[in-house]
Amino acid sequence: MSRDWSLQALQDELDACPAIAFMQLTAESLNPAEGEVVLRLPLRPELARAAGSGQFHGGAIASLIDTAGDYAVALSVGGGVPTINFRVDYVRPATGDYLLARAVTRRVGRTIAVADVDVSDSTGRLCATGRGSYLAVVG
Amino acid sequence: MSRDWSLQALQDELDACPAIAFMQLTAESLNPAEGEVVLRLPLRPELARAAGSGQFHGGAIASLIDTAGDYAVALSVGGGVPTINFRVDYVRPATGDYLLARAVTRRVGRTIAVADVDVSDSTGRLCATGRGSYLAVVG
Amino acid sequence: MSRDWSLQALQDELDACPAIAFMQLTAESLNPAEGEVVLRLPLRPELARAAGSGQFHGGAIASLIDTAGDYAVALSVGGGVPTINFRVDYVRPATGDYLLARAVTRRVGRTIAVADVDVSDSTGRLCATGRGSYLAVVG
Amino acid sequence: MSRDWSLQALQDELDACPAIAFMQLTAESLNPAEGEVVLRLPLRPELARAAGSGQFHGGAIASLIDTAGDYAVALSVGGGVPTINFRVDYVRPATGDYLLARAVTRRVGRTIAVADVDVSDSTGRLCATGRGSYLAVVG
Repeated sequence: MSRDWSLQALQDELDACPAIAFMQLTAESLNPAEGEVVLRLPLRPELARAAGSGQFHGGAIASLIDTAGDYAVALSVGGGVPTINFRVDYVRPATGDYLLARAVTRRVGRTIAVADVDVSDSTGRLCATGRGSYLAVVG
Repeated sequence: MSRDWSLQALQDELDACPAIAFMQLTAESLNPAEGEVVLRLPLRPELARAAGSGQFHGGAIASLIDTAGDYAVALSVGGGVPTINFRVDYVRPATGDYLLARAVTRRVGRTIAVADVDVSDSTGRLCATGRGSYLAVVG
Repeated sequence: MSRDWSLQALQDELDACPAIAFMQLTAESLNPAEGEVVLRLPLRPELARAAGSGQFHGGAIASLIDTAGDYAVALSVGGGVPTINFRVDYVRPATGDYLLARAVTRRVGRTIAVADVDVSDSTGRLCATGRGSYLAVVG
Repeated sequence: MSRDWSLQALQDELDACPAIAFMQLTAESLNPAEGEVVLRLPLRPELARAAGSGQFHGGAIASLIDTAGDYAVALSVGGGVPTINFRVDYVRPATGDYLLARAVTRRVGRTIAVADVDVSDSTGRLCATGRGSYLAVVG
């Protein structure tokens, strides 16, 4: 089920999804051996919590987490996978020009995979943390 | 901490948030006595999972859930509140012209409030279900 | 995959598990058509949060939730199923002689099932609420 | 709000709770500077999933996770704190003579704290992972 992944291949998969493309997510790095991806979310005005606030809306952060976890699992499984469920904890207001989501696969079983995702701002401070459960089959 | 809520007042709060306004969320109904709101999310192309799929992206559904739960709590507390964390379970692909999120406050304590949110498609089928924990103070 | 369930058959399954038997869980009612079970947890001293407090420890409540959700799904699937994950929200101190957990299946898909569990005290007040995701296959 | 913690002081707090004492949890290590504790759960027969299985019941694991996260936060806050909610993901059957739970505080805010808890078996394999949200005030 595995395949070769490059940063460009990951970016192409992201761009093929209208909702992800709208968010202008970029693939920053990937480490297939560790099941790890880093995605970057810029603050476009449509994702702000309040006009001119410079703060990301929680929904955008949740979407970032779900997507990053999904592609961390995809590194092992070969493509984007269906999300079963996920949890988001918001720990600080998320401000600045962009956020980084680092997603790490914790376990890929025969049926279920689990990924952890930390979201940090441009100064490296943790803003939110997520955990998702995914079907370990390409969706 | 309470205040009078009308459908228009709720809609005005939604529209004041760029991220929510972009999603074109509309307030369909509210029941302050029960701590219940219903929001409607149309399928604009930027929220699709795949171009032309007619399927909502999971991130848009998560954002809908967080927002609906937030405003269910707001009915009791007087305004939008900070989300502590939430969980989303996806139970069916979400397709069609729009989704409805029905959010019900389960408990408003002195510090913490909990809301449940069911997301159904235009035929009434459950597509996703969410549960959020919120600070019971206006953010 | 289905089978006939009686209250006694459910009780026998519960009693066969040492951890559940230790908790002295009893099956109060079941409704296979709705995928619903009610379990009762008495306050034995070993489950107290503090000696003489009359308050249940959170871990006992979590265990009750997991088990109740599991057997709600079992009504559809034919037997106890592996838990993928679950969430517990504690909304009030849980005191009194016993707790009741009402578990309702929200969805049984081909691979995944979701159940909701409300835990109330003997006066009917909600003390905790849980949501679990289960593999829809007998474990 | 802080206080000095020793391994014995933590053990004394654990032993003061009947539900925790019944589980025979022992404090293995603590690192107040990092907000980290390690607890050990032996497999007493009353915690087994099936008689003679050598497998821990999920409820015991959930209870271990809640308790470990709670005391990780307690290192910063000065004592056991109320759990708001937590999530458990089971990733492998948990077998063997004992489990170790390593809990790490991710964030202690003014009102809310978040802790992550990994549960491993005696060979170091990850069996379950938890995340809890706690009130950052002594309960």
